[in-house]
Amino acid sequence: MESNDAVRALFNPRRMAVVGASANPAKWGHIVPSNILRNGYRGDLYLVNPRGGTIHGRTVHRSLAEIGEPIDLAMITIPAEEVAKVMDDCARARVKAAIVISGGFSESSPEGRGLEQELVEAARSRGIRLVGPNTMGIYSASLSLSALMPPVRPRPGHIAFAAQSGNLGTQMLGWGSYRGIGFSRFVCVGNECDLEFADYLQYFAADEGTRVILLYVEGFKRPRYVLELAGEISLRKPVVIYKAGRTEAGRRAVASHSAAMAGSQEIYRGMVRQAGMVQAETTEEMLDFSEALAKLPVPRGRRVAILSWGGGWGVVEADLCERSGLEVASLPPEVKEELSSVLPPYWSKGNPVDMVGIVNLEDHGRCLEILASHPSFDLVISLGTINAAAAFGMAERDEESPEEEREILRAQRTYVREGSNRFARKVLEMMREHGKPIVTVGMPQKEMEAADIADLPRDELCIYTNPERAARVAAMLAARGEYLRSRGC
Amino acid sequence: MESNDAVRALFNPRRMAVVGASANPAKWGHIVPSNILRNGYRGDLYLVNPRGGTIHGRTVHRSLAEIGEPIDLAMITIPAEEVAKVMDDCARARVKAAIVISGGFSESSPEGRGLEQELVEAARSRGIRLVGPNTMGIYSASLSLSALMPPVRPRPGHIAFAAQSGNLGTQMLGWGSYRGIGFSRFVCVGNECDLEFADYLQYFAADEGTRVILLYVEGFKRPRYVLELAGEISLRKPVVIYKAGRTEAGRRAVASHSAAMAGSQEIYRGMVRQAGMVQAETTEEMLDFSEALAKLPVPRGRRVAILSWGGGWGVVEADLCERSGLEVASLPPEVKEELSSVLPPYWSKGNPVDMVGIVNLEDHGRCLEILASHPSFDLVISLGTINAAAAFGMAERDEESPEEEREILRAQRTYVREGSNRFARKVLEMMREHGKPIVTVGMPQKEMEAADIADLPRDELCIYTNPERAARVAAMLAARGEYLRSRGC
Repeated sequence: MESNDAVRALFNPRRMAVVGASANPAKWGHIVPSNILRNGYRGDLYLVNPRGGTIHGRTVHRSLAEIGEPIDLAMITIPAEEVAKVMDDCARARVKAAIVISGGFSESSPEGRGLEQELVEAARSRGIRLVGPNTMGIYSASLSLSALMPPVRPRPGHIAFAAQSGNLGTQMLGWGSYRGIGFSRFVCVGNECDLEFADYLQYFAADEGTRVILLYVEGFKRPRYVLELAGEISLRKPVVIYKAGRTEAGRRAVASHSAAMAGSQEIYRGMVRQAGMVQAETTEEMLDFSEALAKLPVPRGRRVAILSWGGGWGVVEADLCERSGLEVASLPPEVKEELSSVLPPYWSKGNPVDMVGIVNLEDHGRCLEILASHPSFDLVISLGTINAAAAFGMAERDEESPEEEREILRAQRTYVREGSNRFARKVLEMMREHGKPIVTVGMPQKEMEAADIADLPRDELCIYTNPERAARVAAMLAARGEYLRSRGC
Repeated sequence: MESNDAVRALFNPRRMAVVGASANPAKWGHIVPSNILRNGYRGDLYLVNPRGGTIHGRTVHRSLAEIGEPIDLAMITIPAEEVAKVMDDCARARVKAAIVISGGFSESSPEGRGLEQELVEAARSRGIRLVGPNTMGIYSASLSLSALMPPVRPRPGHIAFAAQSGNLGTQMLGWGSYRGIGFSRFVCVGNECDLEFADYLQYFAADEGTRVILLYVEGFKRPRYVLELAGEISLRKPVVIYKAGRTEAGRRAVASHSAAMAGSQEIYRGMVRQAGMVQAETTEEMLDFSEALAKLPVPRGRRVAILSWGGGWGVVEADLCERSGLEVASLPPEVKEELSSVLPPYWSKGNPVDMVGIVNLEDHGRCLEILASHPSFDLVISLGTINAAAAFGMAERDEESPEEEREILRAQRTYVREGSNRFARKVLEMMREHGKPIVTVGMPQKEMEAADIADLPRDELCIYTNPERAARVAAMLAARGEYLRSRGC
């Protein structure tokens, strides 16, 4: 089967089966189907184990063939030595792709390497394509399919993610879920005995639900080929990459983890830059950059306007922007004049525009509009207004306080929440109207609480928790814009 | 009054008064005393307003003198033009220090500068020392005193913090509160018309409850004097500094915010380094570094052992450590042997030590013990074991799932939570026994949830949410150790 057809079947299986299903809650053969059911897979799930029986009230079939329906995807949880043997049964059930989560293959020993070779031959000769082995599985938003080992519940969205570490990859899905960052597809590539980065990349490039591609890579099997491919794709869709194994210590760790060749960091960096990929320097940037590229327009230049509720944060952000290569452009006279009609006479008259502690959030919205609508600025960073109720503990319950105090707190909270939600809608409106990114910093005490964002259009906004993250995102967006312009896009 | 006596009175007032108390919930004269009461101030609070009446069921006195008791601390919330005039009343009530939160002084206009001069003279001639004006107030753990404008509830602890931005400073208190990072004292220095950084620094240096001093600085009034002072102090207590105004854009913003002279960044950096201060490069590092210095021992060298639940995170951390100048030391043969008695035969045999997904957290504890007890390592970073239940959504409620599923999830959660709490206690035990820092990375989906840490000794542990933060903290601790050794401490 063609790679692309196999990958399509992998992410869109109408029928799938777990081979090695188990009634024992401590076994992956139990946990994986539980995760699939719990996340509401919109396809038919079958359980297979030669011993039969029932699990979660479902019949356990003794073989794939016994199901009597063609199966698009098989997920295999049995010991390494047994996997090659089920390929026959897979072929009879017309399985297109198999995810082999079992470990004990080439990542662990020379014997394992032999088993992996044997498995590849068994699958290839039957036209079955393989994910893994030694993978934690896949996620696909279109069918709400969480065929994963950890009980993570990814949020549907527009980022397609291929990771050479299941642990790191699935944790990112979890983080994303909490922060309102959604994924279209996820695959833990495992040992890449058959399907590999290039295959997933090619599918993601054409995938309609995918706006951004994210890669966690320890080493590519065919670096030149993948990077050429990424170069073509990144003219249309941004490709964010985190490359691990950048130091001697990291390369040694890669060798014993994924057994990939990490390669020279300098050569990689050059190639990645040439391919127009966006490099994440930290694991935090992997999500921050992907989110921004999925949600925000690309700016036309590097001139940034900063709107800040308090002076200190404005100072910090101005420093950060300038150090990231953005231009903290001065305010044109007409902008100063307009702002003066909103702000008290002692306002700073400069960029950053300091809201000097004004609590009326409508005024923040008016200042945002003045900055976002002016052609002197290519992007805007807004600090402290959005999600303001979560800052300063206003989202906290306060049970020890006397009723009168609690009443006041509730009133304050409602006032601030409503105001900051109106501001959030203004941010979206301005972005749409002017086609400029507006990066917001919520600075809550904790990462966004679900209750606080209930009426915020979270799936379209980028809200960071500190000014450093906002500055890095803004600089990345500006660089992406420059790259696209340099290539005539 | 001597600065030190005034600062002592400021942070330890037996009796304090809010001058300008108001029944209007939108006024600072109402919000500030509400915050003080709500946070359980262990002293006597008096309210003062010439109009009298009652607020929160308390008598409002018409003047300070009318109270009939000596008042240690006055907090003044009346308009700038009125402040100098109440100094007489303050003197009659034997006020030692006054916090002037009112704005409209030198930060705003030439007239304001005149008012400030007048205020300083009125206070000085009466022996009253001033905080501010244009300050957001103070916090003091010893009396549970939150004399602050925002409704933040700081957590008591061992960091003393002086900030030249109230907004930024109080937000840090809020973040700390959520993350289990406590403060002994906080002051927003405001315009420093009288008491200034050096005075607070001197008090913090001798303050028994303070283990670490944190400064957010836009510009010192007397840089050389403060930095010399910091140089003496930092041999005994670590002083963490975030210096804003590092770029042209930042310096312009400083000029219009605090009107401080930001000065040349290069000269500052050199002086700060020479003074042995710890430089935070980001606002996140301000808290991360202060927390680590308050909680963890200083390492004897740069050799780090990394323990990781999953391979990918180990690779990422090895890279980060090496890039931060730490040595990812190789495992001595006897350590490999001991680890082999715990881990399955296919373990990596290298540093990072990859737990290859083992779910039995007792084994993680055993491996930690092997690494922490060996003289080849000066510090240990542990990834993914601590607070493991918060990762992968196991802390989430799962109301849509069928009862059977929820039962399984609850059982898994309890198992993992108990195991990771045992591991946390092991971390503490090992730190005490071997006097080595153990930096842990919890990697939860969200910042630590209170419910998840209820039985973790959070006030003594450092738990970061990603490997980058842990590597930066570890490198900072190693540098601090080297500085102290270079100075013969």
